[in-house]
Amino acid sequence: MANAGLLDQLKFDEKGLIPLIVQDVENGQVLMMAFMNREALEKTLDTGKIHTFSRSRGRLALKGESSRHFQHVKQIMTDCDHDVVLIKVVQDVAACHEGYRSCFFNEYDTDAAEWKTVAERQFDPEKVYSK
Amino acid sequence: MANAGLLDQLKFDEKGLIPLIVQDVENGQVLMMAFMNREALEKTLDTGKIHTFSRSRGRLALKGESSRHFQHVKQIMTDCDHDVVLIKVVQDVAACHEGYRSCFFNEYDTDAAEWKTVAERQFDPEKVYSK
Repeated sequence: MANAGLLDQLKFDEKGLIPLIVQDVENGQVLMMAFMNREALEKTLDTGKIHTFSRSRGRLALKGESSRHFQHVKQIMTDCDHDVVLIKVVQDVAACHEGYRSCFFNEYDTDAAEWKTVAERQFDPEKVYSK
Repeated sequence: MANAGLLDQLKFDEKGLIPLIVQDVENGQVLMMAFMNREALEKTLDTGKIHTFSRSRGRLALKGESSRHFQHVKQIMTDCDHDVVLIKVVQDVAACHEGYRSCFFNEYDTDAAEWKTVAERQFDPEKVYSK
């Protein structure tokens, strides 16, 4: 198959998974981290939209399947050990199911010794997920 | 302790580890992915330099302990699930033990169906690691 060169050179762990970092190609913001199995990577390549292996649901998941906020693949990278995938995307609306552009919306405030929300919601999760 | 507010709200996995993404605070480049245990996070907070739990060596590791290319902590973030840590750093010289600024120096070329190196080496690993 056409993408054997990509898949065969990646190292999946003992569960058949590889960590995925998704980054906004436009501004460099890290949007989320997830895991892929081989099938998720193949579907991502075939469709141009990020697919992950959802460990909580135990199945392949199209990112944005409920919200319709898809992630469109622009660049696929791997690291020195070929055991992490970094994909740069164009993000529709927002990545986080809590309504934020990025899942990384909590910053540690060292003075207060607590996590603080440092982003604005882009959508109302109750409206989007109740459709 | 002062940082209990940070540590107690993070979810470590069944091995006591949490994934860490290290990002260059200056240009947004993702530099590497690694894992931390509670001790690595405490040492990172105490020293201001990234420490990881090296799964291959089975021990705490100061990033840059051989190369002296340290990562200086500037901002600590976590995601919606509190099960991934993203730390923005000032990177000394380069992050990758192969001499590249970022570990993510391989890009998938879809036409050629192969991985290609898309960065320049910042240092010669043989010289740095033979010291």
